[in-house]
Order: sequence, then structure tokens, then C-alpha cells
Amino acid sequence: MDLLNKDETLDDLQLKGIKIIQKENAFRFGIDAVLLANFPKIKKNMRVIDLCTGTGIVPFIVAGKTEAATITGIEIQEEFVEMANRSVKLNNLEDRMNFIHGDLKDIKLLKSMEKANVVTVNPPYKLCNNGIVNPNDKLAIARHEVCCTLEDVIIAARVLLKDNGRFYMIHRPERLADILCIMRKHKIEPKVIKMIHPNSKKAPNIVLIEGQRDGGAFLKFEPPLYVYNDEGGFTEEIDKIYGRDK
Amino acid sequence: MDLLNKDETLDDLQLKGIKIIQKENAFRFGIDAVLLANFPKIKKNMRVIDLCTGTGIVPFIVAGKTEAATITGIEIQEEFVEMANRSVKLNNLEDRMNFIHGDLKDIKLLKSMEKANVVTVNPPYKLCNNGIVNPNDKLAIARHEVCCTLEDVIIAARVLLKDNGRFYMIHRPERLADILCIMRKHKIEPKVIKMIHPNSKKAPNIVLIEGQRDGGAFLKFEPPLYVYNDEGGFTEEIDKIYGRDK
Repeated sequence: MDLLNKDETLDDLQLKGIKIIQKENAFRFGIDAVLLANFPKIKKNMRVIDLCTGTGIVPFIVAGKTEAATITGIEIQEEFVEMANRSVKLNNLEDRMNFIHGDLKDIKLLKSMEKANVVTVNPPYKLCNNGIVNPNDKLAIARHEVCCTLEDVIIAARVLLKDNGRFYMIHRPERLADILCIMRKHKIEPKVIKMIHPNSKKAPNIVLIEGQRDGGAFLKFEPPLYVYNDEGGFTEEIDKIYGRDK
Repeated sequence: MDLLNKDETLDDLQLKGIKIIQKENAFRFGIDAVLLANFPKIKKNMRVIDLCTGTGIVPFIVAGKTEAATITGIEIQEEFVEMANRSVKLNNLEDRMNFIHGDLKDIKLLKSMEKANVVTVNPPYKLCNNGIVNPNDKLAIARHEVCCTLEDVIIAARVLLKDNGRFYMIHRPERLADILCIMRKHKIEPKVIKMIHPNSKKAPNIVLIEGQRDGGAFLKFEPPLYVYNDEGGFTEEIDKIYGRDK
């Protein structure tokens, strides 16, 4: 097939026939992207922008699950943008989706874009405060704050969101103080937190957070989500998110 | 008995024979005080100060459970202070415990006190931003931010703590953004969060937080604590905290 290169695979999302191109040996989507894509409340005709979009996995799930009018992904690594745009063609989703090559620190670029009702982001989790990260490494860029910090991400979301627009991020609980304080600093008020635990006995290892641009202060915790049940299988809630419920 | 007034009861903590005087019809201790008193890591010979101490329930549990050298409670309502000091006498704990009548906003008073390794607090939870609270009401003072705000409490803890001393607070999850941001503002770094849920299916309704004066940034979530199990009885962890485990 013309749209697929040699080192790539075509993976079926099990969602309205949508398929996504991924690198065979590079960053492939995991549970974080699936959890994030299922977290936002996205209504008909909304505009969605996904930051640090990578292969575009979050936009493709959102396209399949919602009636969003347009979904744009922004990614700093050009080869991912090119690959994601081939996935768009392959799924005949050119009327709703596109991917842009750009740096989310480029405020001029962000200001030139149409504002969004919803901004989603699965940012690099790890602080980049030691010398061991190679800035040319694709995995390092996706996992460490090489190209953008948490604060860069939140500033970008503020610029891209309409008044009262919603921000949805997945991150690590150990960064929660940073997350809440930086969101408040840039007036994206934390509104909802949902903790993801490996199982009901373990501490949370993933946090989903919803914020509102210029929202009022009221933070609601949702019931926790456990990935595995006591028998070691996936919980019903996870099966539901993956579309495996009957 | 001379130490007990007519409208008071003497309640056995089921902990090394310690008994505490409480008002029959006023604020009586609940699970929050018990959870808070069991949260801190208190080593031999440490000095502990409890803010918003009320009847002194947290200091009395700490006295029973730890080898703290001295435990001081500060309370703004004089009749509670007088009552708590009678509880001290009644338990023959005058060498380790005392209660002071004072306002935690009185920085001069706080600075006159011996610094502590540990500060605990079960503060008023509710924002006092509507007109319905009666500032003469004892329950209102305990539950609403009539006499002190969250920020007053954190400022007081900073003044009272030794370098690297630990701060332990119980609060409501909906205030978590306020808590983390105000702690950081006053350089008590959030270090540990433990969420308390009514059961494993419900959102957390209580948060325990540990901070360190001038500590480095690293936040650890502990496994959650559930109050009730699936059968509607208390969980093993709660039984253990209440000393009911066999």
C-alpha cells in the first residue's frame, strides 16, 4: 500500500474501522492515550486541539467516539506529523482532521489558529533536570521535558482555548502539585481529577485532570478507575473504554 | 468527680486507658481526628504541636500511640482549652502535654513557643464566603473558616516548625488545589498524599497531606484507604487504626 512505509504498521483501533499508522520500533500508543481520549466531554460541532499528538492516536479516538467538528493535532517531530496526515487520508477523515508541524512554544503560530472548545494533551512526564537525555532521541522527546515543560503546555492551552474552554491532561500523580499550581498561575482552573490505580490496593500511578479557562474554583474528584481487578484481569471499566464490553 | 462538669462526658479512647472529656451536645470527635492522629511519623523525643485542637483529641491519641516528648495543643475557644487541660490532669499526662489558649494568627505568640518537629491540624473545612455563619457559634468556628483561613493555618505551621519539620493536615479533596498552592507559597512542600474513600467504588471525601518545611519537590501518593468494605462493614485498615484488630 502506498500510504505505508516499510518500517511502519497499520493498527486497527477497533473503533468504527479507524486504522492508525505507527512506527514498528518507535513510540506506540499505550493505555495513557486511550484513557485521555475517553476523558473529555466533547459535544457535537466542537473544535478540539491535541498537543504533543505524536502519531495522532488521541485525535483518531476522539474522531471515532465523538461528533467533534474538527480535530487538529500539533506535533514538533515532523516525521510523526507526516505519518499522522497519511493516517487521515487512509481513513478518509480529511474533512474533520489535520495535523500541523509546529512547536507549542511558538505563541505566534498558536494565535494564528482557530480557537478550540477543548484542548487535550499527553505531555512528556519526566522532568528534564539531569544530563542523561539525548535531545535527538524520539522517545526522549516524547517522555522527557526536552522540547516543552509542563508550564509551556499549559501556556499553549490557555492561548488555544476559547473563553471557558476545557483543558484535559493525563500526567503522573507525583507532579500534581506542579500541575495544580501552574494551571492556577495561568488561570486554567482545576475542575475535575480522576485517579487511575493499577488495582484497588495500590496507589494511583496516573492522573486525569480537567481544567477550565478562567473557571471558578471548585474541584471535584471522580471515583477512581482501577486497571486490573482482584483476579488480575481487566476491570469492566477498562473493557468498556477499549470497547470490549458486551 | 471534680474534673467533670455536668454537661460533659468522659470517653475512653480504648488506648492505654486514656480518657477524654467532651461536651455532651457540642463538637465531639469523629473519624477525621482519628485518621489525622494516626497519619504522622512521630519518633521518640519529638515535639508535636496541634493547631485547632478543640477537645485535644489528636494530642491525646498521639500521646497514647507515640513516644513524643511533648505535645502542645493550641485552641482559640477558651472553654475547650480549659476542658482539655482537665483531661490532661485526669490522665496524669502533665509532664508531656499542655493546651494553650490562643489565636494561630498571633504570630508573636507562635514565635514565643518552642519549635516543633511535627505540626498537625484538622482545620475548619468550609470556606466562609457567605453570610449565614454565626461567628459566636462553637460548631461554626470548628467547621467554617470564621477564625482562621487555610492560609492562616499554613503560615502558623511554617512559624512553628523546625527546619525540615513535618506538617500533617486532614482536609477535603475539593480544596486540594488551594492546599497545594498555598503550601508551596509558604514553602511547606507537599510530600505525601493519602486519599480516604467511603469505599473502593466512591470518590475520595477526605485527604491526608504531609508537607515538609523547605522540603524538596517530590510528591508521593500512598495507597488509598477505604472506610467500608464491599459488605458494608469497616475495612481491616480502619479496624487497625481504631485498635479493633485481633
